[in-house]
Amino acid sequence: MIIDWKQIASNIYEEIKKEVSWMKTKPTLGVILVWENSPSLRYINEKKKWAEYLWINFELKIFKDNITEEEILSQIEYFNNNESISWYMVQLPLPNHINEKKLIASISPKKDVDGFHPENVWKVLIWDTSWFVSCTPAWIMNIFKSIWENLEWKVVTVIGKSNIVWKPLVALLMNAWATVISCNSKTKNTSEHTLRSDIVIVATWIPQLLKENMLKKWSTIIDVWFTVIDGKIHWDTDFENIEKAWHTITPVPGWVWALTVAMLMSNTLQAEQLK
Amino acid sequence: MIIDWKQIASNIYEEIKKEVSWMKTKPTLGVILVWENSPSLRYINEKKKWAEYLWINFELKIFKDNITEEEILSQIEYFNNNESISWYMVQLPLPNHINEKKLIASISPKKDVDGFHPENVWKVLIWDTSWFVSCTPAWIMNIFKSIWENLEWKVVTVIGKSNIVWKPLVALLMNAWATVISCNSKTKNTSEHTLRSDIVIVATWIPQLLKENMLKKWSTIIDVWFTVIDGKIHWDTDFENIEKAWHTITPVPGWVWALTVAMLMSNTLQAEQLK
Repeated sequence: MIIDWKQIASNIYEEIKKEVSWMKTKPTLGVILVWENSPSLRYINEKKKWAEYLWINFELKIFKDNITEEEILSQIEYFNNNESISWYMVQLPLPNHINEKKLIASISPKKDVDGFHPENVWKVLIWDTSWFVSCTPAWIMNIFKSIWENLEWKVVTVIGKSNIVWKPLVALLMNAWATVISCNSKTKNTSEHTLRSDIVIVATWIPQLLKENMLKKWSTIIDVWFTVIDGKIHWDTDFENIEKAWHTITPVPGWVWALTVAMLMSNTLQAEQLK
Repeated sequence: MIIDWKQIASNIYEEIKKEVSWMKTKPTLGVILVWENSPSLRYINEKKKWAEYLWINFELKIFKDNITEEEILSQIEYFNNNESISWYMVQLPLPNHINEKKLIASISPKKDVDGFHPENVWKVLIWDTSWFVSCTPAWIMNIFKSIWENLEWKVVTVIGKSNIVWKPLVALLMNAWATVISCNSKTKNTSEHTLRSDIVIVATWIPQLLKENMLKKWSTIIDVWFTVIDGKIHWDTDFENIEKAWHTITPVPGWVWALTVAMLMSNTLQAEQLK
């Protein structure tokens, strides 16, 4: 079975649209982009399209590759202090001569669309749910909310260990009283863990890492991303065979972005409301 | 087998003492105590004794129960700005009329002995090892360091889910490439997880939760704390039977404090050196 992400995303969009329609001052999402990175521009256009659909204003600042750290910092300063910006993001990755960590820490935590600022990461940890959660963990938790009442008693295996996505995700799952197994590339026998899991979340960029025979029946699989090799898309899972068996799985590309952008817009709305 | 915590603690103490002996300005540990809480006073005297042994200055401020939040905040302000204080701690718990979270967030992250400040919790998450880790996760990781070269390939089960201890601990274990299983009171079949673990860390305050038949041979057990019921001490583990079998386990009370205080002193020294 394929998870009906279109329904989930569409529910989120319609809820946002309804909320925004009532607002006198519409929310504004700011985006800082360093030009060189052309794939980013595609993603940003996608965000812009959705913002327009939801009557959310979109303020895009594009800079050249050779921009200095100081120039970006002064744009951040401007966005921090400008009342009309509900919140904003710096599109990653950035050119090598820019210190990403420093930039992220200089974004006002109240306008930190991605939830990357130390204070916001911390709030996720201590389960301060009044606050923003970075978009990928947020939509994963949203999918679960659409399927189950809660995650108590569930065993969830998370394969991966990035700072910004996986650790907040593990914290959110712990908060939700799930039993969480965190695996990584050094895990000895991954299938020993996945075979006992109700849910498996994977984002390793290793093609076909997760096979059908590694899963227990009726489990739910969240495959976050894919790799492109020689123009061909490879999932982290053996999608076809898993889908044919007794499992529920997230579908082919398109959906990740739709849900990520939905969370982005949902957070923008929340930022305006909390102002 | 019982873990030789005395050797581990003594190694840490001797290393600190050697370092401090070379310093012209000795480190100073500040402590803010609200009087009412008499058990805390015992712990503080323990800390003072060790500080003296290590030639670390100890500056204790004791307040009455009815102190206002403003008064504590102004003491915090004083410690934040006083050059001679390397770092300091507010002894928890505090009376109910004081907002603990607010106080912790007002401690300068550079003087945050407990590693509770948002910025320090965040640094643990992103694996900024130049910084302080709160004392309980720190000594647990120290015990592992004294036994194994690294935690790769190891399966570690952590039973508990507190914000300040367990989540940083899970993050530290993830950073160390361990496979981490986080269980809580809603976990359906805990022994299914503990039976497959090389290491089990438990702090649930549920007497005898972990029994010998829940463990695989040769596993290592870290029992963090105990409960006192009718004057009798109860561990979270069936200590006697586990110790008799093929396991390595942390021993009876006394050792937790020795290691926590060792970490406290080690962090105080580090704070002075980083100043």
